[in-house]
Amino acid sequence: MLKGATLSFLGPLDHVGVAVRDLEGTTKAYVDAGLEVVWRGEVGEHRVKVVFLKKGGHAMVELLEPTDGDSPLGRFLSRRGPGLHHLSFLVNNIDESLAQAKRQGYELVDTLPTPGAMGRRVAFLHPRSFNGVLVELVENR
Amino acid sequence: MLKGATLSFLGPLDHVGVAVRDLEGTTKAYVDAGLEVVWRGEVGEHRVKVVFLKKGGHAMVELLEPTDGDSPLGRFLSRRGPGLHHLSFLVNNIDESLAQAKRQGYELVDTLPTPGAMGRRVAFLHPRSFNGVLVELVENR
Repeated sequence: MLKGATLSFLGPLDHVGVAVRDLEGTTKAYVDAGLEVVWRGEVGEHRVKVVFLKKGGHAMVELLEPTDGDSPLGRFLSRRGPGLHHLSFLVNNIDESLAQAKRQGYELVDTLPTPGAMGRRVAFLHPRSFNGVLVELVENR
Repeated sequence: MLKGATLSFLGPLDHVGVAVRDLEGTTKAYVDAGLEVVWRGEVGEHRVKVVFLKKGGHAMVELLEPTDGDSPLGRFLSRRGPGLHHLSFLVNNIDESLAQAKRQGYELVDTLPTPGAMGRRVAFLHPRSFNGVLVELVENR
């Protein structure tokens, strides 16, 4: 081990991903309860429409509705129903963080980053590495 | 409706609750990845042992292991396995927020707050009101 080498790769919690079948109805439930919409869009790479919500300068809730039932999110919904889907943590350099995660023995879903929402690069780690929780890295920019 | 009446009740995201069977092993997975333990303890009212983790001044991850298999969390684990369990949002006055949620038609699990982790008062809203997500209110203090 190099002296001073970084021994971790996760930054602060950026958002929590939630799988939904009814993006507009679920958005309304959170907005009526007090959250504010900060971004809406479609992420072609992942075949999802998304809405990001938050309150104040804090972590966000990302609602995801599949645009294709046979996408990973569509299959999650068929198997589990709507609900909490993933935790997403900020990283400064996603390529370095993925390499570090792999060196530390965490199992990767994505060996290379893909384009995510808001033009940010993202990559998933396998739920087996976090006892049942799908973890996303999202590059800070 | 009174002029100026508050029409919402959720504040910022405080933490994400995660159901686990192996509190120590899961804590290690997050700590090795970069998060820091900020609180450990047992919440007798909910029959759980918990660890709160975070990075920086941001939202936390709460790992929850049941101390009783027949508790709500124990039954969740039997039914769904380990994984994401609830979203918790800060409120300034939990009694007022519960009353407001009820007035707006959100379904309550708890009509009165109960003692939660870190000595804070908490109450749950039913997943039916948020399309599959169990939402907790936690009083800021």
